[in-house]
Amino acid sequence: MSTPTAQSIQPLSRKEIFEAHEGGKLNISSARPLENMRDLSIAYTPGVATVCQAIAEDPAVARTHTGVGNTIAVISDGSAVLGLGDIGPQASLPVMEGKAQLFNAFAGLKAVPLVLNIREVDELVDTIAALAPSFGGINLEDISAPRCFEVERKLIERLDIPVMHDDQHGTAIVTLAALRNAAKVLDREIADLRIVISGAGAAGVAIVDMLLGAGAQDIVVLDSRGIIHESRENLGPVKETLAAKTNPRGITGGINEAFTDADTFIGVSGGNIGEESLKLMAAKPILFTLANPTPEIDPELSHRYGGVVATGRSDLPNQINNVLAFPGIFHGALAAEAKSITPEMKLAAAAAIAEIAADDLNAGYIVPSPLDPRVAPAVSAAVKAAAQA
Amino acid sequence: MSTPTAQSIQPLSRKEIFEAHEGGKLNISSARPLENMRDLSIAYTPGVATVCQAIAEDPAVARTHTGVGNTIAVISDGSAVLGLGDIGPQASLPVMEGKAQLFNAFAGLKAVPLVLNIREVDELVDTIAALAPSFGGINLEDISAPRCFEVERKLIERLDIPVMHDDQHGTAIVTLAALRNAAKVLDREIADLRIVISGAGAAGVAIVDMLLGAGAQDIVVLDSRGIIHESRENLGPVKETLAAKTNPRGITGGINEAFTDADTFIGVSGGNIGEESLKLMAAKPILFTLANPTPEIDPELSHRYGGVVATGRSDLPNQINNVLAFPGIFHGALAAEAKSITPEMKLAAAAAIAEIAADDLNAGYIVPSPLDPRVAPAVSAAVKAAAQA
Repeated sequence: MSTPTAQSIQPLSRKEIFEAHEGGKLNISSARPLENMRDLSIAYTPGVATVCQAIAEDPAVARTHTGVGNTIAVISDGSAVLGLGDIGPQASLPVMEGKAQLFNAFAGLKAVPLVLNIREVDELVDTIAALAPSFGGINLEDISAPRCFEVERKLIERLDIPVMHDDQHGTAIVTLAALRNAAKVLDREIADLRIVISGAGAAGVAIVDMLLGAGAQDIVVLDSRGIIHESRENLGPVKETLAAKTNPRGITGGINEAFTDADTFIGVSGGNIGEESLKLMAAKPILFTLANPTPEIDPELSHRYGGVVATGRSDLPNQINNVLAFPGIFHGALAAEAKSITPEMKLAAAAAIAEIAADDLNAGYIVPSPLDPRVAPAVSAAVKAAAQA
Repeated sequence: MSTPTAQSIQPLSRKEIFEAHEGGKLNISSARPLENMRDLSIAYTPGVATVCQAIAEDPAVARTHTGVGNTIAVISDGSAVLGLGDIGPQASLPVMEGKAQLFNAFAGLKAVPLVLNIREVDELVDTIAALAPSFGGINLEDISAPRCFEVERKLIERLDIPVMHDDQHGTAIVTLAALRNAAKVLDREIADLRIVISGAGAAGVAIVDMLLGAGAQDIVVLDSRGIIHESRENLGPVKETLAAKTNPRGITGGINEAFTDADTFIGVSGGNIGEESLKLMAAKPILFTLANPTPEIDPELSHRYGGVVATGRSDLPNQINNVLAFPGIFHGALAAEAKSITPEMKLAAAAAIAEIAADDLNAGYIVPSPLDPRVAPAVSAAVKAAAQA
C-alpha cells in the first residue's frame, strides 16, 4: 500500500485563514424583515406578548415558536482545544464558531458558540444548567479530561434536553462506524478483534464504551504510564472503571506488550509509534491514527503495514471526522424531542454512517467524505428512530 | 388637541403573530460558504488553530477575528417581562429574540438571546460574568427591581465590556431625548420644570438619574405608597437614595399633592390617573404616559389637557421606544472599544436622538420614528465620540 492522497488541498495561507475569520464566522440576523411599524409590532411589543403568554401557559409552545426547537449551544471552557491544549475561553472561540458553522451547514441547525471563564466542575454544571432554557441541546466541546466526564454526567442527570461532549462521543461514534467497515473489508468481526487504544482521555474512554456496546471483547488501553490493568496503582476513578471493563487477558507492560498479536490500533493520544512496534502486530492490522495534525504512526509506515488505515487528517483517505456525527445526532435528537442521547442513539448513528459507505467499500473508503450530503439526514433519521424506539 | 393616530396599524391577528414566531425569529448561519474540503480546512481544523493561537498570544485579535467585536448577549431571567411580569425564562425568550432582531435590523450587530433559570443576584452575576468572554457587550433585559440594580452594578464592576440594563437606561435615554424636545416645543428649560415621576422601579430610578444629569432641579417620585421623601419609613436602600436626590421641596402625600402645579408627568408604573388629578397641574403640562399597552392616563384625556403628550404605544404619536437607543448605544460602545457605558455616553445618546427630530419639531413630533434609519448611526457616532472623549 502506498500513501494515497484523498484530496489535493493546496497549503492554506495565513492570510486566507485570517480573512475567513474577519468579524467572526457566523451571521445572526432577523429571520423575517422588519420594515414597518406592523413588522415591529408583531416581532416585538405588543405582538410578542401573545407568544410569551402562550409559552407561560404551555411550555411546549417554546419548541415550535422560539429558537429552542432548533438551536444548539456549543460550549467550552477552552481547556483542551484541538492539539493546542489549555488556551483559555476566548482563544477557543474560533473553534466553537467553526462548530456552529458546521451545525448549520450540515444539519440546518442554529448553533451559538459560548465560551466560559470558569473551570470548577460544579461551576460549569451550574452555569450551563442556568443557560439551558435558551437551547434545544448542548454540545460540550474541548473540555479537558477528567473534568469533562463529570461535567457531562451531571448535566445529563440535571437537564431534560440532549447534552453531549462531542470530543468523547462524536469521535467514538465515527470511530465505530469506521471500525465496522474496516472489519468488513478484512472479513473480520468486531467481536474477534484484539484492539489496542492509546489514550485514556475524553476520546479514549468514550471509544471503549462504544466498542464494548458494539460487541468488542478484547480491548487494551494504554496511557502515558503503559497498559491499564486492574492491579496498577493510583488509577483514579475513571481509569479504574476502564481497567474493570477492558484488558480481559490481564496483560501488563507498555506499547510492545499491547501490540503483540493485536489486530487493531486506535490512537487518540499523539506520540510516535515506530516500525518495531508495528512488526509485533498481527498481519495487515487496522490502524486508526487519529492524532491531528501528526498521526501516532507515520502515514507511510501505516500504509506499508496496515490492512486498513484511517487518520484524522483531511488530506488523507478515511478521515475520522466528528462532523459526520454531531450535526445529524443533534438534529435527530431534536426531531424526536429526546431528553437525552442514549447509547442506542449513538450506536444507531454509527451504523448509519457506516451504511453510507457500504456500497463502495474498500480499504481506501471505509467512511463517507465529511462533505457527503447524505450523511447528516441519514444519521438524523437513524437517531430519531432509535430515540422513539 | 384631539387624539391623532401616528400609524394606522390594522389589529394584529393571533395567527399572523404566531406565524412570525414559527421556528424562532433569528437566523444563525455560516457567514461564508462551506462547500469543499478547503473551506472546511480554513473554517475548522486545521486552519482554525492559527487564529486560536493568535488570540492566545494577543487577546485583541478576538475583537477582529471572532464575533466578540460585534456580538451582544441579550440576557434575562424572565422575572419582569413587558407588562406580563414574572413569566419565567423560557416564556420570555420571544422578547429576547425580538430584541436580538432589532439589534441586527437597526445597528447591524449580532445578538444572542439567553434566558437564565436562576434568580439570586450573585448567581446571575457569576453566570453572566462566566459567559462574558463570548461577547462584546451585555444587554440585560426584563430583570425585576430591585435585583436589576445590583446585578447591573456588580457586572459593571467586574467586567471590562459594556453592560447595560435596557429597561433602566434605554428608557431613561429616550425619555430624556423626548423631554428635551418637549421643553423646546413649549419654550421651557428642563431645569425649570416641576417633574413628577410615577414608578420607582427599573425605569423610574434610571430616569431620575438621567434627568438630574441633564439639569433637572425639581423631581418628585411616587411609588405605590405615595410620594417618596426622606422622612418616609422603610424606604429600603434604592428609595433612600432616590429620596436624597429628589423632592427638594420636601412634599408628602399622594398623586394629588405631587401633581399640584407640576409641569411634567412621566408615568412608568401603570395605574390609572383621572381628570381630577390632571386639573391640579400647571396649564398644558408635558404628559409622558409610558405604561404599555394601557397608558397611565387615557390618551383622549392626555391630549385634552396636555401641552405635549408621549406614550409607549406604536399607534400613537411620540412613541418613547427603547429601540431608538440600544442599537446605536452598543454599536458606538463597541466601535470605541469602551469598557463601560458612562453617564456621558448616555447623555450623548439622548442628545443625538433629540437632535434628529429637532428640524421638524412640534407637539406631535418630539422623537423620531423607531424606523428612522438616521437614528442608530447618529446615536452610535455620538456615543463613540463621548466614549473617546
